[in-house]
Amino acid sequence: MDRIKEIRKAIDSIDTDLLKLLNDRAQLAIELGEIKNELGLAIYDPAREREIIKMMLSKNDGPLDDQAVIGLFQRIIDESRRVEKFSVSSDKNITTENKQRESK
Amino acid sequence: MDRIKEIRKAIDSIDTDLLKLLNDRAQLAIELGEIKNELGLAIYDPAREREIIKMMLSKNDGPLDDQAVIGLFQRIIDESRRVEKFSVSSDKNITTENKQRESK
Repeated sequence: MDRIKEIRKAIDSIDTDLLKLLNDRAQLAIELGEIKNELGLAIYDPAREREIIKMMLSKNDGPLDDQAVIGLFQRIIDESRRVEKFSVSSDKNITTENKQRESK
Repeated sequence: MDRIKEIRKAIDSIDTDLLKLLNDRAQLAIELGEIKNELGLAIYDPAREREIIKMMLSKNDGPLDDQAVIGLFQRIIDESRRVEKFSVSSDKNITTENKQRESK
């Protein structure tokens, strides 16, 4: 049973690192969203998303199989896109509110 | 546009680290599955899964929101459980095959 506790502790440590990396990724996605918004580019970029999945599959040594890698990175990309979109629409809302305030 | 390239490079680097950690986690899950199997314990442990999600929510500083953290870790846990189960059932198959071979 001690080995179970050890493994769980190691998993908890990995999860903490994963959480940090996922938030770092989301922060970059937000910045990317803002730049794309300024340049009038679309947030959704299916070619780039396919490129990421392809790269991860080529780098994967397992034990996760292709199906797992696709599923996990699709979710990671989806959540990044969600915060990317959310940040852009929040900016727009703030801008609209400011404009309304200014016009009064 | 250079900043977009820089951000994408940083995201690619994070994704490579994520892939490594996700595979490390899967490896630990496989070992855990084997131990649980030997001890006759169930692979699915909803209390432990809730504990992981709760811990991640308490450690989350954003920009990912609670909904994103729950979604991402639910997927990570699901994939770990899948490889955990798969490894145990593969072991069983091998054992059954060996037994069949031995009995011939």
